[in-house]
Amino acid sequence: MSNPILVEITRGSLVESVHRGAIAIARADGEITYSLGDIESPVYPRSSLKPVQALPLIESGAADAFGLADEELALACASHSGEPIHTARVAAWLMKIGCIESDLACGAHPVRYEPVWHEMVRLGLAATRIHNNCSGKHTGFLTVARHWDVAIKGYELHSHPVQQAVAKVLGDLSGIPAELPWGIDGCAAPNFALSLSAFARALAKLADPGALPGARAAAARRLVRAMIAHPELVAGTGRSDTILMRACRGRAATKTGAEAFYAAIIPEAGLGIALKIDDGAGRASETVIAAILDKLALLSDDKAAHELIRAPVRNTRDAVVGERRPARALVDAKIEALPAQ
Amino acid sequence: MSNPILVEITRGSLVESVHRGAIAIARADGEITYSLGDIESPVYPRSSLKPVQALPLIESGAADAFGLADEELALACASHSGEPIHTARVAAWLMKIGCIESDLACGAHPVRYEPVWHEMVRLGLAATRIHNNCSGKHTGFLTVARHWDVAIKGYELHSHPVQQAVAKVLGDLSGIPAELPWGIDGCAAPNFALSLSAFARALAKLADPGALPGARAAAARRLVRAMIAHPELVAGTGRSDTILMRACRGRAATKTGAEAFYAAIIPEAGLGIALKIDDGAGRASETVIAAILDKLALLSDDKAAHELIRAPVRNTRDAVVGERRPARALVDAKIEALPAQ
Repeated sequence: MSNPILVEITRGSLVESVHRGAIAIARADGEITYSLGDIESPVYPRSSLKPVQALPLIESGAADAFGLADEELALACASHSGEPIHTARVAAWLMKIGCIESDLACGAHPVRYEPVWHEMVRLGLAATRIHNNCSGKHTGFLTVARHWDVAIKGYELHSHPVQQAVAKVLGDLSGIPAELPWGIDGCAAPNFALSLSAFARALAKLADPGALPGARAAAARRLVRAMIAHPELVAGTGRSDTILMRACRGRAATKTGAEAFYAAIIPEAGLGIALKIDDGAGRASETVIAAILDKLALLSDDKAAHELIRAPVRNTRDAVVGERRPARALVDAKIEALPAQ
Repeated sequence: MSNPILVEITRGSLVESVHRGAIAIARADGEITYSLGDIESPVYPRSSLKPVQALPLIESGAADAFGLADEELALACASHSGEPIHTARVAAWLMKIGCIESDLACGAHPVRYEPVWHEMVRLGLAATRIHNNCSGKHTGFLTVARHWDVAIKGYELHSHPVQQAVAKVLGDLSGIPAELPWGIDGCAAPNFALSLSAFARALAKLADPGALPGARAAAARRLVRAMIAHPELVAGTGRSDTILMRACRGRAATKTGAEAFYAAIIPEAGLGIALKIDDGAGRASETVIAAILDKLALLSDDKAAHELIRAPVRNTRDAVVGERRPARALVDAKIEALPAQ
């Protein structure tokens, strides 16, 4: 059984390429309120896991001990673009916890935000680990290690107390007591695999943490609020999370992941959304999450947000030559609108 | 019916993403010697169409009239990387036919070859139309228009004699007398859609042009020879076509296309190969064409060529975290080895 086609790319009168995938939407009580495709096979949430990976930072008391603000908490959940608003804050945060760039276990990669990247090329500067899109998450891990007074070296290893804490909270939230399969993420941290249904349930508990233990519930509320308050820190200029969270005007937190994972947390409805495109294409996962948020009546009429759902394909002469759009299965998906707030 | 999974990307112990697609291999007599998946629905060959688009350049006598060498013919079939070996030759060729950069209908896009792109960023230079990966194809079109003494303005329009000549030769080679559906390519030229089976047959006639009219047969032989003689001009440093043609040591011409099309021409066996990955991912089309060439026993033991088939996925710390590899359906594909030459 293959997953349904969710997104199609046209050229002229024909569909040129298609993207298959699966969607799970859950409530905190564990009920799956909507599903499409295979939601039971294990997949890696990749960076969509960051809101869960950042929970121990607050729950442990580390965030308060180091006086972190919402900006740092948003960066702990970020796949940022390496803009000055991101890198300056991560650099200052590292200093605050007595760490330096080389303490980060993530590698360097070209800076995503083009004006900064071009300026660095002009100046002959190499990207640093602080420019890594995951540098906020890693600084969060280091902060927990500092707070617990455990070794910071090796904080990215599966066996380290910080990563074991992440595994524990993910197991708790998703309701999976057994050890989850895991792999190494692009940034060198462990990433845990679980089904879309289980991860949607975990996200729903962040959306509606009422039944969680007190410290964890407070941590979840604070983290989701921080993401929603700082869409520009969670991603960056022109990026899908920044566009979508702004267009949802405080009603949803969203988080992209590599290989076309996408997660969303809807506090007012207590919903968690997890989706994955089979082939790993980000153009398709962005289309699907935006279409779902629109069906839930959460999106404003912001043009950039609606162009994530459906947009012309342009060529090098800027002529419209096709379209990226939801395919039939996604158009027909019976996802009910939430009442306007 | 969905196409089979041909390529998979793993992380840790799990398959993280998969790519589906279809393959057609044909002989010049029209027989399909191997197929997998849907080979009858129309698809755009995109830049894999270039060897057909370049045929009128030779067949019309334009190439001889302007004294073009194999280098220019290879560039007419190229999706080049914008390296000096590409752009200097295209610029000189344009001058030879009395044209200038602004006569090219293709738009500018960032230069693919990083050292050149970084140098341009450092110097504050914008990419020109000559840097467009299709500038050789477009200069070929202009050359035919010059030779026929027809308007060069509008040479990229479907109704222009040059594009009508391309449509005619593609119809002849593929055995489809009706007008083909078409769309506008990334470079503004028309691109025609046809089935993988029909396009594989057209490619087979380039591989084995014995039954074609004399001038067309000679043009096909010369063009394929030019591609095979100049793998570095058809693509560029580190690119799949350059790697594969070198590893095939003169026994195959290959040509990638956008949205994960791939074509190959095997003169010694008279075979044409056409494949398309459903989702448009180049990492998968490269894997599939390399795996097919290896099954045909055409690849040397060149490391880069074999890494197109199967390679580690590395993270930002350069650690191996997974693998890109042929999936079961491709591993099991019964494609017979050609005898060594």
